[in-house]
Amino acid sequence: MTDRKRVIIIGAGFAGLKTARKLSKQNVDVLLIDRNNYHTFTPLLYQVATCGLDPSSVAYPVRSIIAKSPNVNFMMGEVTAIDTDNKVISIQTKTNGVREESYDFLHIAAGSKTNFFGNQSIADNSFALRDLDDALLMRNHIVRLFEKAAWTEDKEKQEALMTLVVVGGGPTGLETAGSLYELYNDVLDKEFPGHLKARVVLLEAADNVLLPYPPRLQKSAQKQLEGMGVEVKTSAFVEEVGRDLVKLKDGEVINTYTVVWSAGVKANPLAEMLDVELQRGGKIPVKPTMEVIGLDGVYAAGDIAFLENPKDGRPYPGLIPVAQQQGAVVADNILHSIADEPLDTFTYFDRGSMATIGRSRAVAWVFNKVPLSGFLAWVSWLALHLMVMLGMRNRIVVFIGWIWDYIFYNRTVRLILEEEKLNTKANQLREVA
Amino acid sequence: MTDRKRVIIIGAGFAGLKTARKLSKQNVDVLLIDRNNYHTFTPLLYQVATCGLDPSSVAYPVRSIIAKSPNVNFMMGEVTAIDTDNKVISIQTKTNGVREESYDFLHIAAGSKTNFFGNQSIADNSFALRDLDDALLMRNHIVRLFEKAAWTEDKEKQEALMTLVVVGGGPTGLETAGSLYELYNDVLDKEFPGHLKARVVLLEAADNVLLPYPPRLQKSAQKQLEGMGVEVKTSAFVEEVGRDLVKLKDGEVINTYTVVWSAGVKANPLAEMLDVELQRGGKIPVKPTMEVIGLDGVYAAGDIAFLENPKDGRPYPGLIPVAQQQGAVVADNILHSIADEPLDTFTYFDRGSMATIGRSRAVAWVFNKVPLSGFLAWVSWLALHLMVMLGMRNRIVVFIGWIWDYIFYNRTVRLILEEEKLNTKANQLREVA
Repeated sequence: MTDRKRVIIIGAGFAGLKTARKLSKQNVDVLLIDRNNYHTFTPLLYQVATCGLDPSSVAYPVRSIIAKSPNVNFMMGEVTAIDTDNKVISIQTKTNGVREESYDFLHIAAGSKTNFFGNQSIADNSFALRDLDDALLMRNHIVRLFEKAAWTEDKEKQEALMTLVVVGGGPTGLETAGSLYELYNDVLDKEFPGHLKARVVLLEAADNVLLPYPPRLQKSAQKQLEGMGVEVKTSAFVEEVGRDLVKLKDGEVINTYTVVWSAGVKANPLAEMLDVELQRGGKIPVKPTMEVIGLDGVYAAGDIAFLENPKDGRPYPGLIPVAQQQGAVVADNILHSIADEPLDTFTYFDRGSMATIGRSRAVAWVFNKVPLSGFLAWVSWLALHLMVMLGMRNRIVVFIGWIWDYIFYNRTVRLILEEEKLNTKANQLREVA
Repeated sequence: MTDRKRVIIIGAGFAGLKTARKLSKQNVDVLLIDRNNYHTFTPLLYQVATCGLDPSSVAYPVRSIIAKSPNVNFMMGEVTAIDTDNKVISIQTKTNGVREESYDFLHIAAGSKTNFFGNQSIADNSFALRDLDDALLMRNHIVRLFEKAAWTEDKEKQEALMTLVVVGGGPTGLETAGSLYELYNDVLDKEFPGHLKARVVLLEAADNVLLPYPPRLQKSAQKQLEGMGVEVKTSAFVEEVGRDLVKLKDGEVINTYTVVWSAGVKANPLAEMLDVELQRGGKIPVKPTMEVIGLDGVYAAGDIAFLENPKDGRPYPGLIPVAQQQGAVVADNILHSIADEPLDTFTYFDRGSMATIGRSRAVAWVFNKVPLSGFLAWVSWLALHLMVMLGMRNRIVVFIGWIWDYIFYNRTVRLILEEEKLNTKANQLREVA
């Protein structure tokens, strides 16, 4: 019999993929599991939602990524049980029923979900932006909304239809608010009789947007947003979201049919399958080696893992570089473990952070030392995102799209796809067995 | 009151769009109605279905097309009734309930639908390729199928999963069969363990593929298809399609989970709303002026219209140039009619026809005189389709995609989008009123 160890990786996000790629052509068998057949480049999801990019520009087939790694296989499905005593997991596959798979090493990299903080009215009536389905749902909605507004005679209702609320003053909230504003007021308005103008409101519960940034960049980001026309309300707590309104704690009501919720994330509930005490946000506690505390041969990394930075005692943020660097440590430590070598510990190399706001508008905090804003920050954002994106064809197509839209103030991907029809027929044909 | 006449155009396909564009900035009000908010470039739908192109590359927002035509407006919805006595139509809009709209001139350009010839087993179990939803449904299915085959241990079942049947030896059937073969055997096979190979079968009821083409090109097309590996069966009548098989009239059974039906079209059933006797295929009989016989101020053009070519007594085929040239005549005749001038009659300027089969494989019949096949025909096909496509950005993106896939034997748009999730949440959010 073979001595080859088997590694199962749950999640083809930034952490899981990094581990899989580092284990490519090593003396292990790797099974990568994801509920989608593609890796999602999450930072650009908001551009899919706002008609700027095609889904395929932010999603890359997992099998393409591992095509040249004969020791890595892929399975599309959702993990339904993890048995760490017997080292077996159950997967509800999308195509082949339930399967059980054994591992020697398990890497849990299942990421995070939108956190509605238990408020059902928000969960029911708002749009999230965590995956491609969310983005397409929102795209369908906002294009349809404009069509509706164009044929609505009731002025009050028309105004509500043309009011868009984004909750959460983090990078995603800022990017979405800016992009929605530009889509409605620079692109769509030219194509509809009456030249309807939209009102875009960004709500943030804290006193400032971009909480972890230095005050100077917080102010700059808010100023840039307001400069383009977005209303920014800080210290604004959402109490309730209805089908046609948002109610704030201070009593203010905004009439709107569109609320985008980017005000919080929590760990993927898959974490609850482990027999460990979860940390804040439902995250799995790990050692600096990325091993799950109390479990043998089980690692966790990225958004689902809880680890404090020894420098400041604060948990590492849910950022792509954190996930990637942790995923690399997982791969190294699995190999170390097989070779009976001492394990590495994770040290975060922080290149800083950035957020884009709109045409020529952005903020960046390079290496958490150099603050940039405006055009220079914006160009850096574009360049960085093109660089870290997977696939040269994606880079070329996205680059052309950006240049095109910049010059012509356009967004070409304004398709409303009929979910109904897709679904009805799909139900007949999906289960091919 | 104004004297301005109002024109309603049903359908933003090639015929309807041509009429709308020719009436742009003329002294008429135009309302263009379509159930989608985009115009579909149908000849390339099969490339969306086979993971080569993004939906947005073959779909162009109607409002973009008419953005510079202030006298043209757009409504997204389906026509539910046509009252030619009172010159009013009812529209079930996608966003604003039912609306009634009055016209002075009506142009019915609602195109065609797949014809399953009353065979419910075919309708239930096969894929059509008439619109973007069809294409996405098929894309989801074929990528999922490969995933399933990769994890199927039963060899017989695996073989059935890897068998794809295309019915209909017209250009769409040939193109789809060739493209499926290349997708499975040149692209996907490299990415799956075991290097699964697919069997692609093209079924044609007549003795030859490409019926209206000269025998020399029919033979060439079949030879090119077979040369790449597609099995071509002529004189093959489909009797029944099940979930996992196709049964032919001669008793042969092919085990397959994928049947693509491109063996026939019929007029959009909207034609039945008119009080006229319909012609073969449910088409609306029109005069050479494109006026519907027996109705005042009502025109029909494109796939939904029935008109015989005086040269050979045969009805004009359902081709894009026919639709476009007829749509132009409709626009001219509406203006003539308003100006009390004599009406034009339609004469078809036939540039010939072409069909592509795969990498460097195609046939073309230029001006119905010069036969071309192989590489030269293929390059002509690519060039022509780039030229007639709407939107420069689409042309650039499609061109790069083609070059890319040609060089790297790749298809990047291999996303399985989750219809379920899209639909569940969409049901909550779709009706924004």
